[in-house]
Amino acid sequence: MRSVTKDNITDVFAAYFGEDTDPRVKEVLLALTRHIHDFARETNLTHDEWRKGLEFLEWAGRITTPERNEFVLLSDVLGLSSLVDMQHSVADATSSSVLGPFHVSNPPALEIGGDMKRDFDGEVLLVEGTVRDQDGQAIPHAQIDIWQTAPNGLYSSQDEDQDIHSFHGLMTADENGRYAFTTVRPVSYTVPDDGPVGEILRAAGRHPWRPSHLHYIVTAPGFRSLVTEVFPDDDPYLDEDTVFGVRDDLVMTYVQQPAGSFPEGFKLSGSVDGSYSRVDFDLVLARD
Amino acid sequence: MRSVTKDNITDVFAAYFGEDTDPRVKEVLLALTRHIHDFARETNLTHDEWRKGLEFLEWAGRITTPERNEFVLLSDVLGLSSLVDMQHSVADATSSSVLGPFHVSNPPALEIGGDMKRDFDGEVLLVEGTVRDQDGQAIPHAQIDIWQTAPNGLYSSQDEDQDIHSFHGLMTADENGRYAFTTVRPVSYTVPDDGPVGEILRAAGRHPWRPSHLHYIVTAPGFRSLVTEVFPDDDPYLDEDTVFGVRDDLVMTYVQQPAGSFPEGFKLSGSVDGSYSRVDFDLVLARD
Repeated sequence: MRSVTKDNITDVFAAYFGEDTDPRVKEVLLALTRHIHDFARETNLTHDEWRKGLEFLEWAGRITTPERNEFVLLSDVLGLSSLVDMQHSVADATSSSVLGPFHVSNPPALEIGGDMKRDFDGEVLLVEGTVRDQDGQAIPHAQIDIWQTAPNGLYSSQDEDQDIHSFHGLMTADENGRYAFTTVRPVSYTVPDDGPVGEILRAAGRHPWRPSHLHYIVTAPGFRSLVTEVFPDDDPYLDEDTVFGVRDDLVMTYVQQPAGSFPEGFKLSGSVDGSYSRVDFDLVLARD
Repeated sequence: MRSVTKDNITDVFAAYFGEDTDPRVKEVLLALTRHIHDFARETNLTHDEWRKGLEFLEWAGRITTPERNEFVLLSDVLGLSSLVDMQHSVADATSSSVLGPFHVSNPPALEIGGDMKRDFDGEVLLVEGTVRDQDGQAIPHAQIDIWQTAPNGLYSSQDEDQDIHSFHGLMTADENGRYAFTTVRPVSYTVPDDGPVGEILRAAGRHPWRPSHLHYIVTAPGFRSLVTEVFPDDDPYLDEDTVFGVRDDLVMTYVQQPAGSFPEGFKLSGSVDGSYSRVDFDLVLARD
């Protein structure tokens, strides 16, 4: 054992585990270390590259705050967050997608037909749909937590000109599973690229853009919580989301509606004189 | 491309690279990401485990300071630091080993035959040897930066009772490559285990001990710098160094010497009335 070599070090690492180690802890730590070792061996990683990697992690640690988590962002741009999401998605339910860092706790209540647009200008959007189970049956009274960017591309927590509840709302679907609200079209935006993750994106010749999307967290008793995002099919970044969040079933169409057709029963602030868009998107939950 | 799946996400990641990306950057980032993805797929990594991993990195970031680098410690206990060392060692030169966090800049000059022991008690050790090249020829006037623990198991930077230069010395070997100094025997010690890396060690049923050792950095014009450590063959942790630093050729024997045999020419503080130990260890540098 004394003679640790580059070829046997993974076996030596494995031999160090205590006999009563939790089997899952051992499985995960050993797989992680085996892949890290194989990575270093395959690339013949140099001291300078190793040091750069450590400096990257130190930098990420220094700029991480409760509001900005550079490690989550790293996981996002490497596709790890999306991969973990996907491998725990249920095939015939709505796909999950990345939570992102812009969710707020205690979002304001949003009634069915309520308005998230407030006084903001932008393309008016009417979003509606049904929360249902994998058999197509409506799930009554599901809770839907909704959030998105303002038309300036910023979430409320990033923007001093918005109050923290701007473009956030918590809706309870009706007894038929129906939800509906008005808003303005969310916009494409960039992930923060002024830190170490931005350096990686630039070194790789990548852009920091995400296609525009609406965020949802949907919960109902007896069902798995769904954390997801939905994307319009005409976004220029749809095929190159820098955090790999787009799934086939999360792409929807904003259908242009003629002027004067805006329906009754919505509490839109201001009137819609011109055209607007309408989106129908069902949210399908998997049983627990 | 829109349809990112858990099976194609690594290919999608690869397709995101810009055309003029530096080939080595692409090679390293792609290999790293492929291994991270494979790790997540093989273990079917869960959201909770992913979140724990991120919390680990955040915690490591919070407690990392210029004096304590938890990311380097993580790399050490996973064997990555040693692996990178080993794959750039030269076969017929002295093996390199981990630098560790306790080196100080501007160590005090230590003349040949000088003393690092000062007023500390402990088993007196006479360390000597020759700096030579791979053909056995002495390298004149190499610089040797030496450091070790005090008998209490602490390096100077960890111990308020020692001045920062305690158990550090910078020696210039003579024209025959000879170096020699006196000290007290370094002792086994634990790596810091009160942070997230300590949690990993405990979860894996591992101890935080390192076998005792002397650190060397050896430099000479025309030769590769050597960063290494040497270990006594009677240390109880020799076969289970928690940072995987031991190599066959770095193990030496402390040879017990009879009382009254202490040689002339050493500037030992105090006298050696009883027995002491003597170590002969040559340092072999590889040509640049």
